[in-house]
Amino acid sequence: MQTAPMSGLIQPRTLKGFRDYLPEVMMPRERIMETARRVYRRYGFSPIDTPVLEYLEILTGKGSEETDRQLYRFEDHGGRQVGMRFDLTVPLARFAAQHINQLGTPFKRYHIAPVWRGESPQAGRYREFVQCDFDTIGTESVVADIETGLVIHELLLEIGIKNFSIRINNRQVLSGVLAKLELTEKTVPVLRSLDKLAKIGRDAVATEMQEVAGLSAHQAQQVLQLAEIKGAVDETLTQLDPLVAGNELGEAGVDRLRQIVRAMQTCNVPAERFQLDVSIARGLDYYTGVIFETFLGDLPSIGSICSGGRYDNLAELYTKQHLPGIGASLGLDRLLAAMETLKMIEPVRTPAPILIVYFDKDRLQDYLQLAQIIRSAGIGAELYPEPRKLAAQLKYADQRGFQLALIAGSQELDAGACQLKNLATKISSEVTWRDDHPALIQAIKNLLQLSDGTLLA
Amino acid sequence: MQTAPMSGLIQPRTLKGFRDYLPEVMMPRERIMETARRVYRRYGFSPIDTPVLEYLEILTGKGSEETDRQLYRFEDHGGRQVGMRFDLTVPLARFAAQHINQLGTPFKRYHIAPVWRGESPQAGRYREFVQCDFDTIGTESVVADIETGLVIHELLLEIGIKNFSIRINNRQVLSGVLAKLELTEKTVPVLRSLDKLAKIGRDAVATEMQEVAGLSAHQAQQVLQLAEIKGAVDETLTQLDPLVAGNELGEAGVDRLRQIVRAMQTCNVPAERFQLDVSIARGLDYYTGVIFETFLGDLPSIGSICSGGRYDNLAELYTKQHLPGIGASLGLDRLLAAMETLKMIEPVRTPAPILIVYFDKDRLQDYLQLAQIIRSAGIGAELYPEPRKLAAQLKYADQRGFQLALIAGSQELDAGACQLKNLATKISSEVTWRDDHPALIQAIKNLLQLSDGTLLA
Repeated sequence: MQTAPMSGLIQPRTLKGFRDYLPEVMMPRERIMETARRVYRRYGFSPIDTPVLEYLEILTGKGSEETDRQLYRFEDHGGRQVGMRFDLTVPLARFAAQHINQLGTPFKRYHIAPVWRGESPQAGRYREFVQCDFDTIGTESVVADIETGLVIHELLLEIGIKNFSIRINNRQVLSGVLAKLELTEKTVPVLRSLDKLAKIGRDAVATEMQEVAGLSAHQAQQVLQLAEIKGAVDETLTQLDPLVAGNELGEAGVDRLRQIVRAMQTCNVPAERFQLDVSIARGLDYYTGVIFETFLGDLPSIGSICSGGRYDNLAELYTKQHLPGIGASLGLDRLLAAMETLKMIEPVRTPAPILIVYFDKDRLQDYLQLAQIIRSAGIGAELYPEPRKLAAQLKYADQRGFQLALIAGSQELDAGACQLKNLATKISSEVTWRDDHPALIQAIKNLLQLSDGTLLA
Repeated sequence: MQTAPMSGLIQPRTLKGFRDYLPEVMMPRERIMETARRVYRRYGFSPIDTPVLEYLEILTGKGSEETDRQLYRFEDHGGRQVGMRFDLTVPLARFAAQHINQLGTPFKRYHIAPVWRGESPQAGRYREFVQCDFDTIGTESVVADIETGLVIHELLLEIGIKNFSIRINNRQVLSGVLAKLELTEKTVPVLRSLDKLAKIGRDAVATEMQEVAGLSAHQAQQVLQLAEIKGAVDETLTQLDPLVAGNELGEAGVDRLRQIVRAMQTCNVPAERFQLDVSIARGLDYYTGVIFETFLGDLPSIGSICSGGRYDNLAELYTKQHLPGIGASLGLDRLLAAMETLKMIEPVRTPAPILIVYFDKDRLQDYLQLAQIIRSAGIGAELYPEPRKLAAQLKYADQRGFQLALIAGSQELDAGACQLKNLATKISSEVTWRDDHPALIQAIKNLLQLSDGTLLA
């Protein structure tokens, strides 16, 4: 057994680009992950998990040079070259190739787990972060596209966000238009330029398309005209029709968008939360059909907080089986950063709303009994572990963000009663509980205003 | 960008000692982790998370030779020696040393996360596994000991296990008895021998204590007599009193056990689920006070599924601050293996109980509307994505373990109705839903027997 050097202590610290999650940060993180699980499941997505470590060849098979450079890799005890996953898509592809015959299709999975990238740490960027992916594999049906949009919508609503817009596009529309303009072989540089539209503006994109991709000024204007179509869905769909007319792929692309839009209306998704935006063109090397991005109305500058799209063939590096699919991913860290900026997160450091004060050192059995009564009703309660002074325990309660303190001395306990102190208003009320546990629970629920059940443990 | 070699595919496989979790395995895992979070929170434990990678010196500071050998370690992009955590206790110690002034005490945290050990894979042992720890730091109060026992009890009940026993001991009792026998300096070898009692039996332990630790035959018998005290708590406590009489530490140890036992009775923990067992002596180099182990009545041979204990000083390698505490950990993999052996896990591969059959290809909007009505009631529903033959969709429903199929053709839909087919009994019933959504939800709830709410998404 090794021990610390006699000379001193080991400095407690985390690696550069990594961070600890303290309770006040971890609690909202966990709440959002739980919301994601609940919504994903409700649509029939099942959880899976895969190893953090994979054979290096699995991870580098389709990585970009950038992800390869950022990969945490090493030789393991058995001399194998291994790496830590840098996303959840490559493991999904490997997983699907390995198990799809057993799983069957359609296969709908979610995966909420950390990934690692050794990139240069910047403000708000970390080397370890959590992804919350959901995908439907093995079907090209528009139903899977529709459900992807519905899941994003429901997920944000249940997280507590109301002001947001899901932007949808179909890569096939642009492909159709480019084909009509005889620019098919210039798709990649054109998309790359278009992707900068929001950042560098119309003129710079037009110039870049002419200089880099060799488009004529007319062609560049036509492409930009298409990319700038956005807004209310009915109107924009009508504008797209003539642009793709006569091109099969483009027409199919618009038709699919139309089906999705109709379905969103059927499912009562408000029009302002679901918009066409032909300029979005994410994941150049990956997405082939419908694509989604999601922006917060109150903080659009933070970028898309939930993105994804349709791909033709998930696992081509690992299997000959054709596996089309569609998926999206909630950007947990970005969303939490936005919610913090928007003051949507309470600075609470306790998951239990009630602190039971350990007031009279000889009445521990009573306090334990009170704690059990409250917890049995599904309400979180912490019993302060030591019979310290009342002021010290109430200070602790305030610092942690408890909502109620339950205070009872020997006189109250002899009378079967206790005080419930609202720590925000400082108002106390007495409740008789020993022969009437429901009265205590009702009083607590009233004080906690447990109308929506969110405070239940 | 790299691509796969022209010659062929990359073989999809996991590393030796690692495994994928498919939905039917991941769903019960996730359910247990959620139960743990809920119970931990209800007692005021807060979630935290720490990086998977730590400075190597943090991890090797107090590792045994075994953990050092098993550590996944490498040099990162910045030339730092790093390692993947092999438990959640060392990261907790580092975390507490770093943040305790900000956190304050008592600090109650839980941490549910994977850890890695490069040990030789055996049946049921993996190199990546999840730990579910909870600890109370910064107090020596018996209240924290009591709550540790209560959390273990409630956790197992809420997981659905009724037949189990929590065994409790206090290291101080044995220390007191050894002091009375003038064997204090032989504590470690004596404990090491006692730890084998269940495995090798009384005589072999007596022999070992004499041969290895140099006890007299009389001393060995005295120690064994102590270690063999177990059973109903009141009786065993009475047997302990004379053995520790006159030794302060031993008397304090028995007194603390007595307080814990009394609290368990106050909190209505049945006597058969909470027993003294003086033979348990886990974590030789770590625990100093109360220790817990938990055995399944139907499968005791699998070993303790929830263990822990009290320690004097958590973070001595990283800080001069004295941090006593107590904690325990649910052995998720061992528990799941036991539940599988005991046939407590349903072979279900869908988190949603209802499959909506895509029957008539022209009525997608109706199916989408039905899906939204059901999901809005918090019940999971999957819409089959393609209008395939009914038999194929029902086969899919059976294979996944859906409970109900919702089937509706154009005639039913025109009448605002649908069929609900119980996939176990094969019995269908018709419900009129279009003008009466609650009727549909009620019919579904009745068929799912949603009395306890556990099937809600």
